[in-house]
Amino acid sequence: MDRKLDKEYIGVFDSGVGGLSVLKQLIVDFPNESFLYLGDTARLPYGAKSKDTIKKYVLKNIDYLNKHYKLKAIVVACNSASSVISELDLPVETVGVINAGLIAAERASESKKIALWATRATVSSQAYEKEALKVNDSIEISSTACPTLVSLVEEGVEDHPLFPHAFEFYFQKSSFQKDVDTLILGCTHFPFFKKQLVQFFKTKGLNVKLVDASSEISKQVEKSISKGRNLQPEHIVLVTDEAPHFKKFISAKMPKNSTFNIKKVDI
Amino acid sequence: MDRKLDKEYIGVFDSGVGGLSVLKQLIVDFPNESFLYLGDTARLPYGAKSKDTIKKYVLKNIDYLNKHYKLKAIVVACNSASSVISELDLPVETVGVINAGLIAAERASESKKIALWATRATVSSQAYEKEALKVNDSIEISSTACPTLVSLVEEGVEDHPLFPHAFEFYFQKSSFQKDVDTLILGCTHFPFFKKQLVQFFKTKGLNVKLVDASSEISKQVEKSISKGRNLQPEHIVLVTDEAPHFKKFISAKMPKNSTFNIKKVDI
Repeated sequence: MDRKLDKEYIGVFDSGVGGLSVLKQLIVDFPNESFLYLGDTARLPYGAKSKDTIKKYVLKNIDYLNKHYKLKAIVVACNSASSVISELDLPVETVGVINAGLIAAERASESKKIALWATRATVSSQAYEKEALKVNDSIEISSTACPTLVSLVEEGVEDHPLFPHAFEFYFQKSSFQKDVDTLILGCTHFPFFKKQLVQFFKTKGLNVKLVDASSEISKQVEKSISKGRNLQPEHIVLVTDEAPHFKKFISAKMPKNSTFNIKKVDI
Repeated sequence: MDRKLDKEYIGVFDSGVGGLSVLKQLIVDFPNESFLYLGDTARLPYGAKSKDTIKKYVLKNIDYLNKHYKLKAIVVACNSASSVISELDLPVETVGVINAGLIAAERASESKKIALWATRATVSSQAYEKEALKVNDSIEISSTACPTLVSLVEEGVEDHPLFPHAFEFYFQKSSFQKDVDTLILGCTHFPFFKKQLVQFFKTKGLNVKLVDASSEISKQVEKSISKGRNLQPEHIVLVTDEAPHFKKFISAKMPKNSTFNIKKVDI
């Protein structure tokens, strides 16, 4: 059966499972749409790879989706992947998290001095700095690569005791200016420790607003697609490697009343 | 030019650059041999992947080396990769770090109660437990997956301030029995923090010997190869992704008087 003749999907692409937080919000905001999630779990994390390698994998994965499914648009939920999409010629409309995150941060910030915590790849791409010029050219971004925060989230330990120590380390490294009032959580993994990070800044006596892309993504998607009328939305989750704790993670993160077909694919 | 007609090499394979510590020791122990290192940096880390995916990548990489170079043997420096080699039909003699690490641990331990810190893939493969039965069947292994220690080493921060906190976390998780007297550093990244970990156990008042495979690897290689007579040994380092801080890392880790050709390959 040619999947192309089937339903139309909104694609969500991530290097791993962090983007499921984005998918969750989209399912709530677009209850009549079918979603197709692809996590490139065999090659994750993208955050430590070179730009050329990230480009190669993004192309390969999106090409696969476009060949096998009918897509309205693709949300690139991974920041490291989003940081290269403007340089790629992709066969389908894309919505990236970087522009969405910046719009949310611009709205939250009074001083327009904005800090960014992200992966090494996202920071060195300077994609946020470039995109900021389009959103509001008075924004000043100071960015810090925080690779170990990715690893801590992946350990899946609720309220991980290393979080406060890691926050302190990256906070020192960020050399927070006095008038920075907003911090972008520039990796799909980072909203998972938002509560603990709010507590950390409170202890420091600092009033820093934490923002991520999720609130803005739906607005961007709304603009890009024609509304669906699927009476029975169908959600599919594809992964390139089936890690042992993966299915448990998906079930825990998804809305209770939604069902998924989970499938391993060879890309 | 067909590389096959060229020199004979001893291969060293790792998922990334951690195995350079193994290569360094081998160059010192075998000054007349040419070495060929392959780091699969595009797909690292292997430690969080499933067994099937690790098998696929190990086969692909070793097949590439065997096709392009004349090899005497391959040292599989990555523990996660070593944990699957007994299940693969490889075209060249292999020496893995797991057997070597166990021999070193067996010699160091009096109680034969041995702890193992390693990646998630190595721990869940139970490769150390299986191999231990061949080395000395009275060995008892208690293993703990320590993924964030990999991330901390990759940050490349000398004496990382998070090390003591991470040691404490994994120490608590390991539920160290009283008579454990030896800890295997079961990931090529871990010898990099040996000094700090010795200090940690000292502060705890515990007498735990730390061992890794490096001291045993050369003995295993000695048994597997016929000695070389290369008057001008040639060392090659291949990587599948050229990450920004990679060349600096290689130069820092290698013997001062040795030279390398570093090349990115598409595998």
